[in-house]
Amino acid sequence: MKKIPFPVIQRLSYVFEIINKLEENGIGKISSSELGGYLGQTAHTIRKDIHFLGIAGTPGTKYEIADLRRLLIDHLGFGEPKRCCIVGLGRLGEALLEQLLAIPQDAFAVVAGFDSNINRLETIRTSIELFPAYRIEKTVRKLQIELALIAVLPQQAQEAADRCCDGGVRGILNFTPAVIKPKRKGVFVRAVDVSGELRILAALAYTSTANE
Amino acid sequence: MKKIPFPVIQRLSYVFEIINKLEENGIGKISSSELGGYLGQTAHTIRKDIHFLGIAGTPGTKYEIADLRRLLIDHLGFGEPKRCCIVGLGRLGEALLEQLLAIPQDAFAVVAGFDSNINRLETIRTSIELFPAYRIEKTVRKLQIELALIAVLPQQAQEAADRCCDGGVRGILNFTPAVIKPKRKGVFVRAVDVSGELRILAALAYTSTANE
Repeated sequence: MKKIPFPVIQRLSYVFEIINKLEENGIGKISSSELGGYLGQTAHTIRKDIHFLGIAGTPGTKYEIADLRRLLIDHLGFGEPKRCCIVGLGRLGEALLEQLLAIPQDAFAVVAGFDSNINRLETIRTSIELFPAYRIEKTVRKLQIELALIAVLPQQAQEAADRCCDGGVRGILNFTPAVIKPKRKGVFVRAVDVSGELRILAALAYTSTANE
Repeated sequence: MKKIPFPVIQRLSYVFEIINKLEENGIGKISSSELGGYLGQTAHTIRKDIHFLGIAGTPGTKYEIADLRRLLIDHLGFGEPKRCCIVGLGRLGEALLEQLLAIPQDAFAVVAGFDSNINRLETIRTSIELFPAYRIEKTVRKLQIELALIAVLPQQAQEAADRCCDGGVRGILNFTPAVIKPKRKGVFVRAVDVSGELRILAALAYTSTANE
């Protein structure tokens, strides 16, 4: 299979979300320029991205959403939701858990939560299974968990990630301000950098004013 | 002043964070390839980005960090921290507030929090001022708040953003799964899309396995 570059994977993941929503609303076809509108990209970029799935789109004709969906499932593996865990169930972790469970997800399913504080585990009411942190490695392996969202204290982030790697996760979403380095090759790490996002917004607001 | 394209602003904002940390550690110079390493970009891209600040870098020579810092402050407005508020102080909002106040910030300062539940405001212990949600517009105007982090329930997100816009914010960071459309021109909105991030990780893990 032809290797799909990272920015294309990123955009196609978003396309998957969009067409799922359109399909729910009974829409059957979509053009590259309409998709481009949703993503803030040109129709040309979208056609090039979809070409990686094996459809050579031509300007002006629409894609069948059912075809697109099937191809995205084939190429990006969205057929079977990846199992996901949340490590750290303080306020942040619990809020994220609740947010993720409240909406139907199309690419992953949160199946387990971990916290080092056992009393904490007993006070949380949720539909998923909760475990003490020392059981991360075994549980990740047993439940075949592939994704981990890390919401522990910054000073515990690397250790939490290491345990997840030991258990076999393939992707880590880092919600702490600490930098996480994957312990194994082939583990992808992405970070939600709240300060970084606000810094970018600060710069955008300033530069647009300076240019007015 | 020459208009700086959005991806350049995004990268330069990150450069600002990096050089601040290097400066704290007593480092005085950095090359474009070292900066590129931090950002996952080529040295060439970094040199082109920094060229927007008026320095024509040449391969192999290092930038003075103090110069870079001053130019980033001039061009991206990082000299005076932008005032920021958090709207919605449920578990998520309170956790984000705590996280942002725990680390010294270089581009913004959280100065106010809002929640529609007045009892909630009384139970939160924090160093910043808290207000009921109906006072968003007046308070944002009075305190000259330019950035807002929205962490309310999805169904309240647009209204919360509208009130912030009415008060005069210039940038909104949306932490809800709802889509927020800015009420006024010139207001930038960025979203932290937790499901989207996990979807991308799922696709990365799958495609790298499929290519092995």
